Amino acid sequence: MSKEKLVIFDTTLRDGEQSPGASMTQEEKIRVARQLEKMRVDVIEAGFAAASPGDFKAIHAIAGILKESTVCSLARASETDIEHAGEAIRPAARKRIHTFIATSPIHMEKKLGMTPDEVVERAVKAIGWARRYTDDVEFSAEDAGRSELDFLCRIFEAVIRAGATTLNVPDTVGYTLPTPFAHTMGQLLNRVPNADRGVWSVHCHNDLGLAVANSLSAVLAGARQVECTINGLGERAGNAALEEIVMAVKTRADIFPVETCIDATQIVPASKLVAQITGYPVQPNKAIVGANAFAHEAGIHQDGVLKHRETYEIMRAEDVGWTKNKLVLGKHSGRTAFRNRLTELGIELTGEDQLNAVFTRFKELADKKHEIFDEDLQALVSDEATLPEQEYFRLNYSRVTSETGEIPQARIALSVGGREQQAEAEGSGPVDATFKAVEQVAHSGVELLLYSVNAITTGTDAQGEVTVRLAKNGRVVNGQGADTDIVIASAKAYINALNKLHASQGKLNPQGEV
Amino acid sequence: MSKEKLVIFDTTLRDGEQSPGASMTQEEKIRVARQLEKMRVDVIEAGFAAASPGDFKAIHAIAGILKESTVCSLARASETDIEHAGEAIRPAARKRIHTFIATSPIHMEKKLGMTPDEVVERAVKAIGWARRYTDDVEFSAEDAGRSELDFLCRIFEAVIRAGATTLNVPDTVGYTLPTPFAHTMGQLLNRVPNADRGVWSVHCHNDLGLAVANSLSAVLAGARQVECTINGLGERAGNAALEEIVMAVKTRADIFPVETCIDATQIVPASKLVAQITGYPVQPNKAIVGANAFAHEAGIHQDGVLKHRETYEIMRAEDVGWTKNKLVLGKHSGRTAFRNRLTELGIELTGEDQLNAVFTRFKELADKKHEIFDEDLQALVSDEATLPEQEYFRLNYSRVTSETGEIPQARIALSVGGREQQAEAEGSGPVDATFKAVEQVAHSGVELLLYSVNAITTGTDAQGEVTVRLAKNGRVVNGQGADTDIVIASAKAYINALNKLHASQGKLNPQGEV
Repeated sequence: MSKEKLVIFDTTLRDGEQSPGASMTQEEKIRVARQLEKMRVDVIEAGFAAASPGDFKAIHAIAGILKESTVCSLARASETDIEHAGEAIRPAARKRIHTFIATSPIHMEKKLGMTPDEVVERAVKAIGWARRYTDDVEFSAEDAGRSELDFLCRIFEAVIRAGATTLNVPDTVGYTLPTPFAHTMGQLLNRVPNADRGVWSVHCHNDLGLAVANSLSAVLAGARQVECTINGLGERAGNAALEEIVMAVKTRADIFPVETCIDATQIVPASKLVAQITGYPVQPNKAIVGANAFAHEAGIHQDGVLKHRETYEIMRAEDVGWTKNKLVLGKHSGRTAFRNRLTELGIELTGEDQLNAVFTRFKELADKKHEIFDEDLQALVSDEATLPEQEYFRLNYSRVTSETGEIPQARIALSVGGREQQAEAEGSGPVDATFKAVEQVAHSGVELLLYSVNAITTGTDAQGEVTVRLAKNGRVVNGQGADTDIVIASAKAYINALNKLHASQGKLNPQGEV
Repeated sequence: MSKEKLVIFDTTLRDGEQSPGASMTQEEKIRVARQLEKMRVDVIEAGFAAASPGDFKAIHAIAGILKESTVCSLARASETDIEHAGEAIRPAARKRIHTFIATSPIHMEKKLGMTPDEVVERAVKAIGWARRYTDDVEFSAEDAGRSELDFLCRIFEAVIRAGATTLNVPDTVGYTLPTPFAHTMGQLLNRVPNADRGVWSVHCHNDLGLAVANSLSAVLAGARQVECTINGLGERAGNAALEEIVMAVKTRADIFPVETCIDATQIVPASKLVAQITGYPVQPNKAIVGANAFAHEAGIHQDGVLKHRETYEIMRAEDVGWTKNKLVLGKHSGRTAFRNRLTELGIELTGEDQLNAVFTRFKELADKKHEIFDEDLQALVSDEATLPEQEYFRLNYSRVTSETGEIPQARIALSVGGREQQAEAEGSGPVDATFKAVEQVAHSGVELLLYSVNAITTGTDAQGEVTVRLAKNGRVVNGQGADTDIVIASAKAYINALNKLHASQGKLNPQGEV
């Protein structure tokens, strides 16, 4: 049976990034985009160009780097938004503009304050504006799940005539179920004139835990693009998880009349990269990319005897990129071996200075930890990726003692805008004391929303990777820090978050449009 | 429209507990069972009585405590297993035996070494053995997803005639999709003679991310029981998540012809309890129970303006039990207020001694942390729940310093079987140094598989809750420790895990039967 192509549209960098605190720097977005291209994602939604100058620049930078994947920007159905999007993707070899407008009665009335006729007219205009920049134009009917079918048919017919090439049906609030959603998709394909001129797409949210199932049911009804994110990242309960869509279609090739181009062995590396950069962990019992998903494979010998592994196995761990921790380098490894390994990992440093800085850190780490794994290298580079000009705060020294029955007292030295300041503080634990000492210097007035630690690799000398989520005046950022010393990793994470708050500018955050 | 009842069968204590390291002590199982009854779960699978004497005792204890929920034990289709199950549930007001046998060609041949005729004959006998103990007998066709439909019809017909009252169709390996699974269910209901004499049930695994969708599609096809777990806990990618099943049925009452008895406001407390006891975290973007699932509600003010909340809201956070952290007690709270709050939280202490011990710990904590939340109390009690006789190792003292550029050195004093021993060790960080010092005394030879930390509440003086997963000779345990000092919390968690390894006996672990 010859298969049709299922287009994989990844929106980790746009919808995924809208998760509270998941905002990424330009360098981080580029690293994710490279990994997505490496796994052969068809379309990468790199951001929402009109949201902020930072978003615009990141999309523009990614458009200049990628060679195979289509680079896409989101845009509301306004001429300004679409101009921003068009300029941002200009350098790309393959480019798409994705424009949207709400089509449900409640959204048209309360959010847009427009009549249905005005909405159709605006959508058609938007396609025209977008076509000035590219022939690859996607249109989304926001909140399609609660829109009237007749109106959906009417607006899709109009945008197809205006030149839209991808027609997206989002379930913005995660309310639909597989059977009714498949029914809607089937109706659209049957009733919209010239439906076959475009690729039909779905974008599902996971509020009831059904984003993947709803997407797959639409594929069985004729959709040929799925919008998804790595690890199912996204606002609230997130989007459809790319890894689950890809592996369901692949594992159940007997049912699905489609195939994707994805290199599945890049799934786990992509999952780890996104978890590390955003600070959003993946639970162990998450399908495909959870640490336990292939527990039978993970070297954990279970009690009892497992007879005939294939009786319980529908996928192999190595097919989705699970590997044993690989010892790659030790303290005697040289600069060349180090640089080569970074290249193999897809990590590109910006110059000799950065390579030198990372290599120095590597040698320091190798003194403390005798086995250096790929994950350690990724953390090192991520630590170093902060550009010096973004490092307004820098930790020069810290000391704190943990002792049963005693109150911890921390001493720190912090460079603030180049000038060193010192402070001491007590706390309820060594991390608390250290954060309070930092605050005595920084006076940031932030609120700590989340503190979590994960060991990067196993073993007692593993590096701890700390994520700290801070909020100030309604802005939320994540900071990361890695070190074999958990207190120092915590201090690094806290200071990393302070630097992000210091550096970032106001940014328009579109709300769950699609 | 009058609704039919959907039976909620929770298997957190049986299938959930099979996750590596998720094994619970008897006290922990009782706490979970009480919470499940409080949320009005219909059937609680409390364990697999023949698996170990510990499992048997835990089921027996739960059977003696619960008053409303049916208490169930799993049993293979053997007379001995069923005797164990029947004796274990004997004290229960409502009791069920759940017996199973494999029905797929690959399992019958390779695992059982039996012919199809022998399998049917054994299943019928098993129902008879079970009926000696209770009229409420469930039969599962293991690996039904890969079984031949004709054979399924034949064996279900036979067990119904023998007196089985619940007929369970598991997708043991998480391979099915909603449409074919609904088709199978519909076929069974149509083709099995006397199908209406039993309640049809499903038990789905999440390897492709579809456990919930598959379960719901079977409900639409006529199933009236769903087997599920809190947080979707379970081997590999886990089971169908109870919270998603319940809320999908409730939110889409327009589609589902069924309703559950579940008190949904108990969902989040149950989720937190199970996460805390098993050490299995819930990812933020998990539907219903993830920290971000209702981010619009969580006091995180997003950039941009959210016009008309209802445009994005399909459920309310408070409906599933999300509450703001509630300040319940402070350092001046007395014993009566403390005891009352524990009662409200559903925590039952075993006597005055335990109350005194927990109250002392509460006062110590209140000295370090000025706001004490419900979560803090739960962690305190969980810390104290370890019975003295299970505490072979106990931490009396620890001290370690974290200093930039210096190698941490830890000093500890550990009581081992009642005798204090001291040790010193260096490490790559303060936690590593402390673990190494503990090992100098304990000589356990364990492997550290996982180390993670979560703040129990927000704020810099939050308690850190550390989970440590240790493996030794193929056995895997989780240890937890909570303290405002992360190093001390880590030491407690490590020692808690060592005590579990020391205390636990060999246990038969059935492998993903159902």
